Amino acid sequence: MHAMGVEARAAAATLAHADSDVKTRALRGAAGAVRARASEILAANVRDLDEAGHAKLGASLRDRLMLDEERIDAIARGLDAVAEFPDPVGAVMASWTRPNGLVMSRVRTPLGVIGIIYESRPNVTADAGGLCLRAGNAAILRGGSESFHSSSALVACLHDGLREAGLPESAVQLVPTRDRDAVGLMLAMSDCIDVIVPRGGRSLIERVQNESRIPVIAHLEGICHVYVDRAADLEKAREIVLNAKLRRVSVCGAAETLLVDRAIATTVLPSMLAALAAGGCEIRGDAATSALYPMARAASEQDWRTEYLDAILSVRVVDDADAAIEHINTYGSHHTDAIVTEDQVAAERFLDRVDSAIVLLNASTQFADGEEFGMGAEIGISTSKLHARGPVGAEQLTSFKYVVRGNGQVRP
Amino acid sequence: MHAMGVEARAAAATLAHADSDVKTRALRGAAGAVRARASEILAANVRDLDEAGHAKLGASLRDRLMLDEERIDAIARGLDAVAEFPDPVGAVMASWTRPNGLVMSRVRTPLGVIGIIYESRPNVTADAGGLCLRAGNAAILRGGSESFHSSSALVACLHDGLREAGLPESAVQLVPTRDRDAVGLMLAMSDCIDVIVPRGGRSLIERVQNESRIPVIAHLEGICHVYVDRAADLEKAREIVLNAKLRRVSVCGAAETLLVDRAIATTVLPSMLAALAAGGCEIRGDAATSALYPMARAASEQDWRTEYLDAILSVRVVDDADAAIEHINTYGSHHTDAIVTEDQVAAERFLDRVDSAIVLLNASTQFADGEEFGMGAEIGISTSKLHARGPVGAEQLTSFKYVVRGNGQVRP
Repeated sequence: MHAMGVEARAAAATLAHADSDVKTRALRGAAGAVRARASEILAANVRDLDEAGHAKLGASLRDRLMLDEERIDAIARGLDAVAEFPDPVGAVMASWTRPNGLVMSRVRTPLGVIGIIYESRPNVTADAGGLCLRAGNAAILRGGSESFHSSSALVACLHDGLREAGLPESAVQLVPTRDRDAVGLMLAMSDCIDVIVPRGGRSLIERVQNESRIPVIAHLEGICHVYVDRAADLEKAREIVLNAKLRRVSVCGAAETLLVDRAIATTVLPSMLAALAAGGCEIRGDAATSALYPMARAASEQDWRTEYLDAILSVRVVDDADAAIEHINTYGSHHTDAIVTEDQVAAERFLDRVDSAIVLLNASTQFADGEEFGMGAEIGISTSKLHARGPVGAEQLTSFKYVVRGNGQVRP
Repeated sequence: MHAMGVEARAAAATLAHADSDVKTRALRGAAGAVRARASEILAANVRDLDEAGHAKLGASLRDRLMLDEERIDAIARGLDAVAEFPDPVGAVMASWTRPNGLVMSRVRTPLGVIGIIYESRPNVTADAGGLCLRAGNAAILRGGSESFHSSSALVACLHDGLREAGLPESAVQLVPTRDRDAVGLMLAMSDCIDVIVPRGGRSLIERVQNESRIPVIAHLEGICHVYVDRAADLEKAREIVLNAKLRRVSVCGAAETLLVDRAIATTVLPSMLAALAAGGCEIRGDAATSALYPMARAASEQDWRTEYLDAILSVRVVDDADAAIEHINTYGSHHTDAIVTEDQVAAERFLDRVDSAIVLLNASTQFADGEEFGMGAEIGISTSKLHARGPVGAEQLTSFKYVVRGNGQVRP
């Protein structure tokens, strides 16, 4: 593990001063390799799925793990998109001159070596490796053990690209072991790793936050809410709720809790919940919900704190927008939350007061995605408040320095 | 300790939505109180100095601790400057529209509750409290025990301002105990504190980084370098070196190591070191330095890693700019480093490759200061690479959120 760190540190020193064109060539090369080696990647994925099949694997985890031709093509397109993304390194973020003639500028720099600890989604391997590379960082990737073969096949593609561009392969390394010790070792390697990016459930994030001696950009679970206000356009509300919950249930931007304003609950809930149920969704409601929709199971206190990542929705009737804000700030994970309303005052109050990385008005929480934000690709959605909050793309994987140019100034 | 945290969290919720004008009034009120209560603050400072006098207190620590009328006026002016600084909260940092019509914006928000752990410089109490307030954050301040009376007197002034503006006094709290347990308790209060800002020597920072369960913006010591290149203007070099070392020896931007290009060492060193010695500076040199300036003591390996904060300078002759860069990246603290040269190629290489928060060309390292950067005041110079690097002013004490406004968009 430590040898990987030392190699990553050396690779980072090379990458930090690599030309944009060279990094772009590596990314395009990697995208090409993903397309050329698609059948190899699929075979590795089948091996992962076979091995996982013997263990108990939920439908949601299986969906995250599974690759098909379409998903592999999406991975290649993701790398191409990152290649096209302007190189953040060296960009002058701001520049100003002081009265004493000193010319100051704030210039983007790479972070160095980034350690990424994530669950079993093979596409994260390519996205994270590609984004680190775009921003001039070396990456040490520790993916879920269930996706090890798929991730290895994708890292081989990244290595193809790096080799083509004349960059060191050690710029992207996959932790080879399947055992759990690797995570603990990574978290202590503050001499070789500059930032840890964990992406996964609450227990992983809490472990990393408690144990890490390295700064962390946390990607916590998404307990996302849609609040349907009394002034909602009911047709929009229905479309948004169905999309937020059911478009894809295993992504972090999927809604887990629906909050409905008491003033319109009778009008809205029966048909909306019936439509969700028709889409295969299980409903867990508070007493007011069950009164309007008797097929709902009773929601427990724990339901409000649960990221199902499955076709299950908890539903609560609240007194007004303030009660919705209070619920979200208490039970949510500060990830992504939406209000549906035509009332601008209620909307602005919600957008201001909900303490989440992403707040939406009249749009689905499933837009919580770097690509949808125009960032090319993302490592995930940061729920940290420091450094990077929300989608983490190449720009969020940089630091900066102040460059001060003078002509002999001394301080009085 | 925990009760303070709960009160701070409640105050932060109020501050987060306080009008700019109200926060400005609190800051102006605090500045006025510092002026009105100057004699009271001086008396508290005398008490601190008296108590410290019995303990062994170095000249540098005494200089940091001591207040006089001029320094108290500077503290009041600092608060006025922060009051004038535009409120960062609510500022739209970027805004763009996606092809699907979603309007996205990135909006500054407060961080929440900030815990600041610092050494015995009373002015930090006012600067840190004021900056947190400007950015809508609550502050829990844990200053060095030697400055407790001075800090208490300054916090009373901040409370005057908060009261005048109708804001809760618990927005700025000083940890009342002098015992060391408070730091450990603060570092575990992740439910009440959002960010820890330690400011002090290496042992404090390392303790905080190892122990904290809360994200840290580290303010490490400044092992700052001046490198005098073969193409330096020698008059500029002399002025800059003398200023960087001797203007004020106890600040983090004071130079601790002078690196001189071998090609000009014979020309430069004897007179430069004599001038430094005439200014009261002790010289510790490598063998090449001692050969040119026999009064130098021999520098040990440890000298290259030492922040003297005193009238002592370590001096090394290096082969060229690359050797200087290598020395700085190896032994420095990634804080502030300067090159003196008229060679633009060497200059740009140094500015690019020295991995420090602030890099300067032909200017004194003593400019490492938020006020000199135009930020009004600062908590200190961050040596972290995440979030805030370099001077930490009000803007650096904020987070942001993404606000997305739609009209019914769902994700395909």
